Amino acid sequence: MSNTQGAEPATVERPRLEDLARKVGVSIATVSRVVNGRKGVSREVRQAVLAAMDDLGYERPDRTRSIARGQVGIIVPDLTNPIFPAIAQAVVSLLSQEDFLPVICALPGGGRSEDEYIEMLIAQETSGIIFICSAHADGQASLERYHRLSGRGIPFVLVNGDRPELGAASVSNDDAAAIRTAVQHLASLGHRNVGLAIGPHRFVPSKQKLAGFRSALAEFLDVDDAAPHIATSMFTVEGGQSAANELLDSGHTAIVCASDVMALGAVRAAQARGLRVPEDVSIVGFDDSTLMALTYPPLTTLRQPSTAIAHAAVHALVAEVAGEQGSRSPVVLASDLVVRGSTGPRAGTSARRRTPQSRQ
Amino acid sequence: MSNTQGAEPATVERPRLEDLARKVGVSIATVSRVVNGRKGVSREVRQAVLAAMDDLGYERPDRTRSIARGQVGIIVPDLTNPIFPAIAQAVVSLLSQEDFLPVICALPGGGRSEDEYIEMLIAQETSGIIFICSAHADGQASLERYHRLSGRGIPFVLVNGDRPELGAASVSNDDAAAIRTAVQHLASLGHRNVGLAIGPHRFVPSKQKLAGFRSALAEFLDVDDAAPHIATSMFTVEGGQSAANELLDSGHTAIVCASDVMALGAVRAAQARGLRVPEDVSIVGFDDSTLMALTYPPLTTLRQPSTAIAHAAVHALVAEVAGEQGSRSPVVLASDLVVRGSTGPRAGTSARRRTPQSRQ
Repeated sequence: MSNTQGAEPATVERPRLEDLARKVGVSIATVSRVVNGRKGVSREVRQAVLAAMDDLGYERPDRTRSIARGQVGIIVPDLTNPIFPAIAQAVVSLLSQEDFLPVICALPGGGRSEDEYIEMLIAQETSGIIFICSAHADGQASLERYHRLSGRGIPFVLVNGDRPELGAASVSNDDAAAIRTAVQHLASLGHRNVGLAIGPHRFVPSKQKLAGFRSALAEFLDVDDAAPHIATSMFTVEGGQSAANELLDSGHTAIVCASDVMALGAVRAAQARGLRVPEDVSIVGFDDSTLMALTYPPLTTLRQPSTAIAHAAVHALVAEVAGEQGSRSPVVLASDLVVRGSTGPRAGTSARRRTPQSRQ
Repeated sequence: MSNTQGAEPATVERPRLEDLARKVGVSIATVSRVVNGRKGVSREVRQAVLAAMDDLGYERPDRTRSIARGQVGIIVPDLTNPIFPAIAQAVVSLLSQEDFLPVICALPGGGRSEDEYIEMLIAQETSGIIFICSAHADGQASLERYHRLSGRGIPFVLVNGDRPELGAASVSNDDAAAIRTAVQHLASLGHRNVGLAIGPHRFVPSKQKLAGFRSALAEFLDVDDAAPHIATSMFTVEGGQSAANELLDSGHTAIVCASDVMALGAVRAAQARGLRVPEDVSIVGFDDSTLMALTYPPLTTLRQPSTAIAHAAVHALVAEVAGEQGSRSPVVLASDLVVRGSTGPRAGTSARRRTPQSRQ
């Protein structure tokens, strides 16, 4: 792909070392070492020079390539919920910095299964696999595929949906604690009837969210039986809409949703009834996926720390690849409640007090 | 992966054929054929039964697998702009229905390059590659990599960024016509100072958008020199914000943005100055990516027909794989203007008339 081969007309110039050196703030000699694929340059500087070549529209010469330590598979359920591309892209960038070549296997709705991807990755002698909230997170799915990977010595990490019985490396968001924070926030705003809109219960994150909701209802609202306050649907805008309608019909003034996408559906359900958010109904999302500050109203939500999750997952995978797995203690990361405009005091009451939380 | 091996405790049941047959609405014999991997079942029914197995939380038995016609690579620039995961997911689903196994190669910012992915896919004997708005769309990038693929007989399709000099199969959105529609809409609302907020000009879609903008300014607003009406920044929220500030400083009352993400930045810039959208400033996005109906205000935008683009791209790739490439005429798809709440009559004027367009 070097431009000296003459196959390509004059649309591309050879990198001008001075331009690159100026842009990155290093010496011309350093840039030359990177361009010629020589050693003696830190990974950070090398990445910066390569990025500058990309920015300036230069082709990378052949010699800067073929440094990858191997392919890593990233298995995600689908890309329509914006939290999955966000985590996947963060994992891609970090794996790439570690000199791995990441490929994303997104599960098509109702099409090929995760196992086909696993077979493909094994056949391609993958260096490892990061599973993001895929079959492992489904409490009804077989764990045999993971036993098989362990048996073959293929490193892998489970993200959001740990299965302690596997003893695998795992990174999860603390979903139970997050939901408790949301219920506490709503209780402090004077809400007494707080509902949970959630998708199918068989997934590990759902189970955690349900557990957090039940304990929070008992602790903050003296509710023993959470069942009438849980509406189950799908993890989609339409699912959120339908679950919210059920909860609004039964007199709830505040709804915690198990995803941002569901929360946007819940806002739509409330607005379709002529209810104002947050004056009449408060709604909390989950994930703080891209653009949630720009919805109407800006969504109060529990932030999944996607960059921190990606860092922990890549760190764990790199350790597995290096055979340094150690104790494989599960990594559990905390969610912040980001208070924006979709939650407020219950109508007709003065809230007892507002939870002290970050506002942005 | 069948559940008869006893490796897995009783968390998983064998598929109950009756349940599956009832759910899909076919006979038990048909379900049995699918589960046992026998022939004589249409692809649609097989997919429906497999989807039902997934829905009901059943494992797919081994025999339903190993039907893939091969791996197909999907190269996307990154997943942070929501239009890319949307198109990629649609391509994944359609390739999967065609019995291909799709893998997504998302380019990490400043990390590995597209060529490393291409080398990997070649080494893995890929069946073909769909390039979505990646290096081919960069007018400054070398085309040698595509010549090399052609030379090796590897089928590929270019999405959004045709390069006629390659003679490759391509599918594009009609970006020039889309921008013209937006300018016409704003002119009909009485706007005389219409600006364009756009990212780097070297990309093919940018060039098309600029061409459409220049011709529309001349035709609908009698403006000969478009240059003072074009603000160039990055294709991000912050880029949109910065470009919009420049255009607002120079007295523009309406801004067409080259992506939805930029448009959300433009809305934010206007609101930060205390300007109301659309009462004081009208803003049009581009893509109609997920959730744009739920922003504040709901975004008027040019819809990229992502499902139609994915259909055309997969259709073209399947033809290439079958050696039926024919004339390889470029496929160009039209964008609809979706009029929502971010555009309105210019302040202080009564609009001449409203463009008749879909409202949703």
